[in-house]
Amino acid sequence: MTPRAAVLSIGDELTRGQCAETNGRWISEQLLEAGVMVVELRTVGDDREAIAKALRAFSGSVDLVVATGGLGPTHDDLTREGLAEAMGGVALEVSAKARAAIEARFAQRGQPMPPSNLRQALCPAGAQHLENAHGTAPGIVSVVHRTQVYCLPGPPHEMRPMFVREVVPSATALVACSGARAPGICTIHACGLPESLAAELIQPLMNRKANPMVGTTASGALVSARICAVADAAHDGSLERTACEIERAWGDYAFGRDSTTIAHALGETLASRGESLAIAESCTGGLIGQLITSVPGSSGWFTGGWISYSDDFKQSSLGVDREIVRSHGAVSEQTACAMAVAAATRANAQWSVSATGIAGPTGGTLNKPIGTVWIGIAGRVNRSGEVGVFARQFRFGGEREQIRIRAATTALQLARLAILGRADVRLLSQVTSSATAST
Amino acid sequence: MTPRAAVLSIGDELTRGQCAETNGRWISEQLLEAGVMVVELRTVGDDREAIAKALRAFSGSVDLVVATGGLGPTHDDLTREGLAEAMGGVALEVSAKARAAIEARFAQRGQPMPPSNLRQALCPAGAQHLENAHGTAPGIVSVVHRTQVYCLPGPPHEMRPMFVREVVPSATALVACSGARAPGICTIHACGLPESLAAELIQPLMNRKANPMVGTTASGALVSARICAVADAAHDGSLERTACEIERAWGDYAFGRDSTTIAHALGETLASRGESLAIAESCTGGLIGQLITSVPGSSGWFTGGWISYSDDFKQSSLGVDREIVRSHGAVSEQTACAMAVAAATRANAQWSVSATGIAGPTGGTLNKPIGTVWIGIAGRVNRSGEVGVFARQFRFGGEREQIRIRAATTALQLARLAILGRADVRLLSQVTSSATAST
Repeated sequence: MTPRAAVLSIGDELTRGQCAETNGRWISEQLLEAGVMVVELRTVGDDREAIAKALRAFSGSVDLVVATGGLGPTHDDLTREGLAEAMGGVALEVSAKARAAIEARFAQRGQPMPPSNLRQALCPAGAQHLENAHGTAPGIVSVVHRTQVYCLPGPPHEMRPMFVREVVPSATALVACSGARAPGICTIHACGLPESLAAELIQPLMNRKANPMVGTTASGALVSARICAVADAAHDGSLERTACEIERAWGDYAFGRDSTTIAHALGETLASRGESLAIAESCTGGLIGQLITSVPGSSGWFTGGWISYSDDFKQSSLGVDREIVRSHGAVSEQTACAMAVAAATRANAQWSVSATGIAGPTGGTLNKPIGTVWIGIAGRVNRSGEVGVFARQFRFGGEREQIRIRAATTALQLARLAILGRADVRLLSQVTSSATAST
Repeated sequence: MTPRAAVLSIGDELTRGQCAETNGRWISEQLLEAGVMVVELRTVGDDREAIAKALRAFSGSVDLVVATGGLGPTHDDLTREGLAEAMGGVALEVSAKARAAIEARFAQRGQPMPPSNLRQALCPAGAQHLENAHGTAPGIVSVVHRTQVYCLPGPPHEMRPMFVREVVPSATALVACSGARAPGICTIHACGLPESLAAELIQPLMNRKANPMVGTTASGALVSARICAVADAAHDGSLERTACEIERAWGDYAFGRDSTTIAHALGETLASRGESLAIAESCTGGLIGQLITSVPGSSGWFTGGWISYSDDFKQSSLGVDREIVRSHGAVSEQTACAMAVAAATRANAQWSVSATGIAGPTGGTLNKPIGTVWIGIAGRVNRSGEVGVFARQFRFGGEREQIRIRAATTALQLARLAILGRADVRLLSQVTSSATAST
């Protein structure tokens, strides 16, 4: 039988709705991948009794509990106390090793350890500390009524590596002992395809009783299909066949699988050709650059860019002709093209992408409503370095941040398609296409 | 006593981590605003028994339960069945009114009602349907052991209007009957202060029995104090007094309240002085620009910037002297200063901020390990436009994305402090300070 798990998230900021709870979803996904089914996620406040009650309720009914949060140095961090109570009211003891690790962490930064951090060296008698390579809060593992209980720090960048190092092997062992097999999971990502059309294109695969089971989710300009294959289907090639079928159905829109981002896919395209990219952003204000440089190794194909937020900057620093902005406006095909050409030329890159538009909340007009964005692409067309350029108009829905993220993602997809010679593919929210102009 | 509530989210896609659960946070926020405290959020799959068990666990222990999801037309939508079981195993009956409403909704679209949708007209005996103006799934309200239980549809655009129409008046009535008053909530944000020290500075306020109650959370280089005042303390000025006390204790580190970001605070500082800012980013790759331009109206004080990701770009486009990079390295005090001076000068801005460092995962050395970042600040020191400049070295913890976000946030705080004449304040992760140099 498939092992069962529960996830407990701890923090007043979560029960009060002041912060989004994001660890639970990630943990569920990871456990499912390892072959463990999460049957319940629970969130409680920084309350010793509520923590203890939840841990007691889970112990015995599931095989594995993963709790996050409440391991900080302050008096409202009560996971240690809650666990001790759930373990039958055992005492909290200072671990000399954990204390030394916390002190070392502060020493490394040239600071003395504040006395309050000593709380983080406490551990219920009979439980063990888990080393935290990314913060001061050690994790804790214990067994409550035959259920393995992992208490991990709340910040995702501390929790995730500890989860991978400690919980995944433990989950894998549980699955091996149970005789169940891990399901096969694969996600296909596309950009510029409406979710309804994306679902229609793979309709025959989306039956809820099918195995592998396929579901779609959409976020901004991205749409993803998540494939989950259980039992034999996880191991007989069905997963890969389904993945290929979806990629075939989505064609040029599909750019990668699993953890691949659109910036990553664009980077691979450029790197395989030994070419480079520059950018000139206006309404996206650095977001395109941020997406690009979040890819490790992007310095191999990304030269740099301009955040040309003001008209003056577009002219004086990027070198866009003042007359172009004056006669056509900052949000226009001509300005988008001029920005792209200037970026490629000045940065001496094979390719460039530009974005100029109106993200709101103000600045919209009848002809150029909020959400109007021009994306320009320039590329060297021959050895002598001549540059070809085109721009496309988009009208993105949503509010400021949605418009910005949709524009940035779409710009990267348009650049990728242009480099692959498929700039004719029509993307979601696209209003018009323009003829290729040469300068 | 403040009425207490629990939130139950239902769906296999949630326990499997295929979809993010977003209703719970929204509902918690809304209930808290009405004066009802959410003490637990729980997510279970499409499982009749799990739903019934959760509803039984909540009934009696809280005053109000809001459940979402599982009201669709398919056989894995089991909230109706789970509620009937929690009510003591009552029968499900077809509501003629609900059936007529669902049929009317399909007729409106010119479609016959699929037989499966008839399931949505089912209601446990003794419970009542709630009209859904935005979809086919009616909500259900019932009383289980004196606890009011609301079952609402899962899609947010159907759930939210029903919540506002049905649950909010009911919550308000509960609060009125209890004699409690809506709590007052306020959050104070600071940057560059370690969480443990931040907590120590306000220790007297952090007693868990105190009212207002204060808790801290940390994220990257930010630390926040959440103040929650209930009963009389919500209305007698205690909330504001506590907020001011925290701001006083945190001094220059504190930059704003509630939804104020560090970019927002920096922008207000600049706008109030009629001054402008330019940026030159290397390791942050656009993130500083993105944080700045996420503030609506930032075009009023942000001129633009350079994402100088390669050494070539730093020289050819930003105009940093090739000799400086060659002799001191791209990650150095001298390069950070030269980048800042070039940005302020070229963009004709009063102020500028630069960041150059090693975000990893590779590129670290013994002397400049991963996480090493130099942040430079340049500013006009007199009317003739002469520029003063300084840089500070930081060593940020975490992985690539953490290092980048910490560097970007810290750069904005350092700029804000410099403009306020408080550049001497030592910030979290700071390694050395350098003397102010003039160019």
